Amino acid sequence: MFDVQKIRADFPILSREVNGKPLVYFDNGASAQKPQVVIDAISNAYAHEYANVHRGLHTLSNIATDNYEAVRAKIANFLNASDEEEIVFNSGTTEGINMVAYGWAMAHLREGDEVILSVMEHHANIVPWHFLRERMGVVIKWVDTDSTGALDPARVIDAITPRTKLVAITHMSNVLGTVVDVKTICAEARSRGICTVIDGSQAAVHMPVDVQDMGCDFYAITGHKLYGPSGSGAIFCRRERMEEMRPFIGGGDMIREVTKDTVTYNDPPMKFEAGTPGIVQMIGLGVAIDYMQGIGMQAIKAHEDDLRDYAVQKLGGLNWVQVQGTTPTKGAIFSFTIDGAAHAHDISTILDKRGVAVRAGQHCCGPLMAHIGINATCRASMGVYNTKSEIDTWIDALELAHDLFA
Amino acid sequence: MFDVQKIRADFPILSREVNGKPLVYFDNGASAQKPQVVIDAISNAYAHEYANVHRGLHTLSNIATDNYEAVRAKIANFLNASDEEEIVFNSGTTEGINMVAYGWAMAHLREGDEVILSVMEHHANIVPWHFLRERMGVVIKWVDTDSTGALDPARVIDAITPRTKLVAITHMSNVLGTVVDVKTICAEARSRGICTVIDGSQAAVHMPVDVQDMGCDFYAITGHKLYGPSGSGAIFCRRERMEEMRPFIGGGDMIREVTKDTVTYNDPPMKFEAGTPGIVQMIGLGVAIDYMQGIGMQAIKAHEDDLRDYAVQKLGGLNWVQVQGTTPTKGAIFSFTIDGAAHAHDISTILDKRGVAVRAGQHCCGPLMAHIGINATCRASMGVYNTKSEIDTWIDALELAHDLFA
Repeated sequence: MFDVQKIRADFPILSREVNGKPLVYFDNGASAQKPQVVIDAISNAYAHEYANVHRGLHTLSNIATDNYEAVRAKIANFLNASDEEEIVFNSGTTEGINMVAYGWAMAHLREGDEVILSVMEHHANIVPWHFLRERMGVVIKWVDTDSTGALDPARVIDAITPRTKLVAITHMSNVLGTVVDVKTICAEARSRGICTVIDGSQAAVHMPVDVQDMGCDFYAITGHKLYGPSGSGAIFCRRERMEEMRPFIGGGDMIREVTKDTVTYNDPPMKFEAGTPGIVQMIGLGVAIDYMQGIGMQAIKAHEDDLRDYAVQKLGGLNWVQVQGTTPTKGAIFSFTIDGAAHAHDISTILDKRGVAVRAGQHCCGPLMAHIGINATCRASMGVYNTKSEIDTWIDALELAHDLFA
Repeated sequence: MFDVQKIRADFPILSREVNGKPLVYFDNGASAQKPQVVIDAISNAYAHEYANVHRGLHTLSNIATDNYEAVRAKIANFLNASDEEEIVFNSGTTEGINMVAYGWAMAHLREGDEVILSVMEHHANIVPWHFLRERMGVVIKWVDTDSTGALDPARVIDAITPRTKLVAITHMSNVLGTVVDVKTICAEARSRGICTVIDGSQAAVHMPVDVQDMGCDFYAITGHKLYGPSGSGAIFCRRERMEEMRPFIGGGDMIREVTKDTVTYNDPPMKFEAGTPGIVQMIGLGVAIDYMQGIGMQAIKAHEDDLRDYAVQKLGGLNWVQVQGTTPTKGAIFSFTIDGAAHAHDISTILDKRGVAVRAGQHCCGPLMAHIGINATCRASMGVYNTKSEIDTWIDALELAHDLFA
């Protein structure tokens, strides 16, 4: 039974005040807060069980290695990967997508080859492909969203040409909340031998993910959005694609043998994990994933769908609020502007005075903002611990902002 | 006044037992333990002051940004960089040196250009240069150490040719403890316009570092060895070299503007920091540096020199122990083997039974091990909290191992 008050009690920061008001944390799209079990796991690892992992042979190193490596199976299970060896640990989606760009795409694409992106991609899923454009003459082809923020998979598929080598698409927009039918896109791409990279930074937080059912080649997640530590993350890599990849970061652990003249690399996934990793962060991420699965991803989705519907209804009564992204299946992410002169930054400052934390700006989505024709929005993005009562507080604060700027 | 017992009390893990014996943690070369102030800083950041940094505008984001960005000046001070904008945050030395390889070297070197390395480099300072050899035909030139483990700067300088574009050298060997006169090397390299990369992973932990006096272009450090969190680190980049670098990791924060057709990058150091960083790890690293500077780097060096001298004296009485690296100015790092059949892994297992944590293997130094002609060593590496009494325990355990394998 989903009990939001019980969940809230697990997150110590939610009991603090901001500007004399109870914190309403609606900046989950940028990063989520951490339950006490995650914080305790980090403290415990450092205070009682810390050492470097792998090649240790002493007790503390073996304990740390066991705790660290156990997270690989947790993440494989979380994403329903068939094999934990398809999980590469990293510091988050940015590193994950860069690994695909440097490790797979730079080795396989040639001048004039095409990469397809949606216009609502986050910069983490744009800039690495601009690197290929700048350095290799790869062509980026963009697929726009419609006026509701929906991305028609048929439009992505229509953009495929014989030069298309890779499709990189978000599973859930961090601005619009749009959930993309990536399964249809991946099936078509796969039938044509085109590599698929799915940015799961948002989606994996808010709904069940099944990479086998989805059929993607790569699926990137970010630990700090998953109620886990900053600097943690992972990427699912289909085994066949992994075999095609050259290493990205070079250093210890990812090699089998180094001589003056030669280097031979370790087997995947170790081949893609260089140097001392984020040991304690990854242990913390494992605990965060246990925590989420303890609640249940379907239950989390149901709760957030309920929040979304409530917010849609409330916002529907404010004809001076413009929300970007209106698909009925969207996540509980609301990017909005207020009619009149108020800048998004000013609105966020007023909301902050009422204890409501939202983000303001472009949300790392320059092309989307240009497509929408808005310079900046405020974004309220919800998570497992948010409540309808907090939505009321937010709406009240919006009305105050509207009054001030009217 | 340096009080090692007071320092020991700051590290909770040091009061634990391993295999029924008090822990003697001599694996500091792999990773250091964390003082309670660092663990508390991490817990506090997550429990009370957490949000994503930059572009936030709400209270928690502003607090987190202030705490996070304050670390840049701490690291600049720690390394005596003239400007905190010469400090790039990262996950440690491996990422730092890869950034130099991808961001500077791949853009500036051509087939046949030469990179000079010492034979005692760590794989983190070898494999990125092997990438240039494999992918671009860059030539790696190696400079050997002598029988004491010393590296004569004149031999490095003699290896320079008109094709030399970069010299990458450790400041302190993680196997031999050798401290390298990098200042002499950097001065000569700089006079010839050659880029210098100094691996400070070990040295910065054990002695004062002054990058201005040293005259290097890049100086890489790793937070988890500096009594800070795993996944934290930084690299000093001389401003002129920074200006010459193209970005390495692409994503949010490192850009000024992204459109469908173009991307413009942020100013350094932000240009080299993509995506959500290791926020809490970097805050923890700042506390660790404060902690070390509170003790004083000269005092830490004096304590560890004292440990080194004591261990040298004790080991000198055991004619069946062979120590690699015998320079008088070395750090308190002892890589050793025992005459007879005992493998390093077996020795480390016996030491572990006595609570003594050492590492066994190649220590990510394949070329050095080949140069020495040994397949593996045990390594006892000391830190600020170690004591002469612990050295006695280690020596006693070594005698036990020797008896067992005699």
